[in-house]
Amino acid sequence: MMQFEKIYKGVAEGDFLLLAKAVSQIENNTADAALFLQSLLPQSIPIIGITGPPGAGKSTLINALIATWVHDAKKVAVLTVDPSSPFHQGAILGDRIRMKDWYLHPQVYIRSLASRGHLGGLNSAMLSLTTLMQSVGFDYIIIETVGVGQSEIEIASLADTTVVVLVPDAGDEVQMMKSGLMEIADVFVVNKCDRPNAEIFINHLKQMIRENAPATNLLQVVGTIATEKEGIPELLAVIHTHQLAVHHGEQKKEMLFAKVLQLIAAIKMSQVDRDLVKAKLEEESAKKNFNIFKFAQIFN
Amino acid sequence: MMQFEKIYKGVAEGDFLLLAKAVSQIENNTADAALFLQSLLPQSIPIIGITGPPGAGKSTLINALIATWVHDAKKVAVLTVDPSSPFHQGAILGDRIRMKDWYLHPQVYIRSLASRGHLGGLNSAMLSLTTLMQSVGFDYIIIETVGVGQSEIEIASLADTTVVVLVPDAGDEVQMMKSGLMEIADVFVVNKCDRPNAEIFINHLKQMIRENAPATNLLQVVGTIATEKEGIPELLAVIHTHQLAVHHGEQKKEMLFAKVLQLIAAIKMSQVDRDLVKAKLEEESAKKNFNIFKFAQIFN
Repeated sequence: MMQFEKIYKGVAEGDFLLLAKAVSQIENNTADAALFLQSLLPQSIPIIGITGPPGAGKSTLINALIATWVHDAKKVAVLTVDPSSPFHQGAILGDRIRMKDWYLHPQVYIRSLASRGHLGGLNSAMLSLTTLMQSVGFDYIIIETVGVGQSEIEIASLADTTVVVLVPDAGDEVQMMKSGLMEIADVFVVNKCDRPNAEIFINHLKQMIRENAPATNLLQVVGTIATEKEGIPELLAVIHTHQLAVHHGEQKKEMLFAKVLQLIAAIKMSQVDRDLVKAKLEEESAKKNFNIFKFAQIFN
Repeated sequence: MMQFEKIYKGVAEGDFLLLAKAVSQIENNTADAALFLQSLLPQSIPIIGITGPPGAGKSTLINALIATWVHDAKKVAVLTVDPSSPFHQGAILGDRIRMKDWYLHPQVYIRSLASRGHLGGLNSAMLSLTTLMQSVGFDYIIIETVGVGQSEIEIASLADTTVVVLVPDAGDEVQMMKSGLMEIADVFVVNKCDRPNAEIFINHLKQMIRENAPATNLLQVVGTIATEKEGIPELLAVIHTHQLAVHHGEQKKEMLFAKVLQLIAAIKMSQVDRDLVKAKLEEESAKKNFNIFKFAQIFN
């Protein structure tokens, strides 16, 4: 049985052993974990999503954010999502190495989650973990996702503030529109701002936002050179302003509602006996009159 | 009440009025539609997913496929997914215009679906529509998605054969790996094959597949110039071979199982009273001891 007080004390002391065990139980969706989650009283701790294409400098940016927070005596939890595909391993390993400075720091907890194989979905596992982190004494929570795909967009819905990191490259601008990044972004970071054309890129981006984003949207653009820690104070200020707006706005309610719906879906699906569905499907689909909609009703 | 025989007869005669009405009811998730779907007896008609970045020539390729099938006296249903974001409208309109030759043809039914606003999810709406098309006398079903994102990857799971269309451009190759296209592709089409470097690009792609794709994967690469209808017979042959493999393999079972799980989830969520959840959430989340996991259990 997980003991909240011991986990909390561990985090306060920079010992993440019990926290890591709790995370594993939550990832494995144990009955203990479900009860434990229902006992948590999460605080209103910022959840900051950081996403964008590989090579944009997300890890370097996160490094810089961590450094600032650690310097201010804050505690940070970083949850990263690893695409489970074998095609991604190279990039991932690189990212992990870039964050290695913080792996053993007593104010920083870093955990990688596989993007697949979570009973009830990655999203519901991530919701559980962010709630845990919001309950055990962290001051900031970062969710980092690599690449541009399904998981990024879903996970963005868990963050209060979603930061999309880009580099000044004309191709990225087009790519962003394609992949729906503009819809999930609260803040755009244009990293590697010392590159030629950075200013043109930023101006293009701002113009695109003016023309396309709804007037109520708080979309901001910040230029950074993460390796030099340039632009980090500006980014923190923008995140802070966005957090204030979120916590006092209608958006917070909508987010909570979306999370609850996800959770209800995950609970309902966790009760479906997949083996039974598979066995019955094997049997029924061989029959001549098989209809998938009629079949699905059996498990209702 | 929808009448199957009349819809079937309409399709046979090239009159899609009743079919279009049925599609609307299914999109709106009416009670009638649910019963109607349970009465269908879908045939084993190929569902071909076509995806890839904008500008790759998907619509031109689909035009060429339709032309071939129409010439062979076949009937084709094309379901396209429109990202609902205002940021995408320009591209979409262009796509629709490129397919306009076929909009009034009696052997071709084309329908655009918005990517959002489907009760129970786009995916379950798309599953319903493909099942309908498999039941009313079409010979081929195409699902076209624009861009690279969540919907593409989910919808790929509905197609028997997923064709990813690329252009010979070094950037795309990298982009493809990022966005997980290699995981969903059954066939790669390298379109605009008259461009310089096309051969190098194709060889790179083949090498990447050899090195990375599982040995059991049937991944194929076909070069086309869709505007000239070059490579279309080769593409059709590859699709046909893949269809045969799918229909006799384990993959078919896995796909059916995934579809059933999606459908069960959609059915369960359609029974959740969202207004009630919202009202209760408003009430409970204001309380001091609010816990989202405990709250979600109420609706179980």
